Amino acid sequence: MQRYKIKIEYDGTPFVGWQFQKNGLSIQKVLQDAIYAFSQERVVVTGAGRTDSGVHALIQVAHFDLEKKIKKKKFIRGVNQYIGKKPITILSIKKAKKNFHARFNAKKRIYQYIIINRQSPLALQKDKAWHIRKKLNIKAMKKGAKLLKGTHDFSTFRASSCQAKSPIKTLKIASVKKDGDKVILQFTSKSFLQQQVRSMVGCIKYLGAEKWNFEDFRNSFKSKNRFKCAPPAPACGLYLKSVSY
Amino acid sequence: MQRYKIKIEYDGTPFVGWQFQKNGLSIQKVLQDAIYAFSQERVVVTGAGRTDSGVHALIQVAHFDLEKKIKKKKFIRGVNQYIGKKPITILSIKKAKKNFHARFNAKKRIYQYIIINRQSPLALQKDKAWHIRKKLNIKAMKKGAKLLKGTHDFSTFRASSCQAKSPIKTLKIASVKKDGDKVILQFTSKSFLQQQVRSMVGCIKYLGAEKWNFEDFRNSFKSKNRFKCAPPAPACGLYLKSVSY
Repeated sequence: MQRYKIKIEYDGTPFVGWQFQKNGLSIQKVLQDAIYAFSQERVVVTGAGRTDSGVHALIQVAHFDLEKKIKKKKFIRGVNQYIGKKPITILSIKKAKKNFHARFNAKKRIYQYIIINRQSPLALQKDKAWHIRKKLNIKAMKKGAKLLKGTHDFSTFRASSCQAKSPIKTLKIASVKKDGDKVILQFTSKSFLQQQVRSMVGCIKYLGAEKWNFEDFRNSFKSKNRFKCAPPAPACGLYLKSVSY
Repeated sequence: MQRYKIKIEYDGTPFVGWQFQKNGLSIQKVLQDAIYAFSQERVVVTGAGRTDSGVHALIQVAHFDLEKKIKKKKFIRGVNQYIGKKPITILSIKKAKKNFHARFNAKKRIYQYIIINRQSPLALQKDKAWHIRKKLNIKAMKKGAKLLKGTHDFSTFRASSCQAKSPIKTLKIASVKKDGDKVILQFTSKSFLQQQVRSMVGCIKYLGAEKWNFEDFRNSFKSKNRFKCAPPAPACGLYLKSVSY
């Protein structure tokens, strides 16, 4: 038995999310089925981040065990062929230690959120960014993101179904950058609560759209009350960018 | 009667190209139909570049005439709503002089070509870049691009159906840049021959894949013979980036 670590890229649009679900096709299932087709072994592929439906990954990391010996290049080519036209692709594979765990051993996760701030609907970036018409106040958004940096109780940004033991997390980076009509938010932490990034982006957007002033934003954050959170940002703008160990 | 100049973004994947055709949906037709739905006027929308099927535009420019007076914001919002879910969007509209011609008055066109050079198939960039597995020699590609710069007879890179009077064009910029697994080619000229960019990229790719050495490349270019051209690069990697007047 050998444990493997793989890196995966995907367009989350047509899937119910990373995690296996009875009511639709998950990224995990596509990978498990393709690995089975290639190796004739039923494996469980455990991902570093259980991304929601519609959320993308530039680099997701996962692990699984195989009895059979494989050649890396042949594995990637073969499994990707079985994945077929579904927008999921294995980027690399490496042998890992027996006790390596993609989710629990992760030391750093980077999420990126893309907003396109313009009047016209999206054409080239359809399903790949959040389209916001109202001109955003970037300075206000930067100030909001700055407040979230550091170690805090993030209960405001936590989905009710979140199973984490503690709502306390440490955000190493929370940044907002503008590039033409694109607004790029980036968040780095060892781990995140369920829907934390989309909830934070939703609140930062309220600041940018001047629906909230800074005090409203701070009050929402400090309330530790889910009901004080702005509507979470849509999944289509969110990208898991990398996971480090 | 007022002439208008519009800027348009589109994902060329589902269309037969810019130009109206009987056998499928063109970008021109989608725009003309949406403008008709909005204004009840049948117009001809003339584009700066007649992009092929599958070719994208970050910014295409076009003109048309309207009898009716319009409000810019209302026009953009209304026409984009009639375009609906098709991946075409009007970015801006401006009044133009009566004799303004999007195609014939253009002083500079910039085309960009995106290659993703890696083993794994494309997921997030599906239909938006040319996927090449074989590791490309970027240095050789840069040298090839450099040879194309300046004023030359580009007959080698000219589609047999091209209607331009002369095969002589001036390439102001022909560059190749690498950014991770992405290779970005950029070409700037007042105008291009039909399929010129894709033909040039096809030949530069032969250099990069070391199917041709520099002499082969030069011979193909200097032959002015279409039959000496490498297979043109696929449409999906090509973007009309901007048009200046």
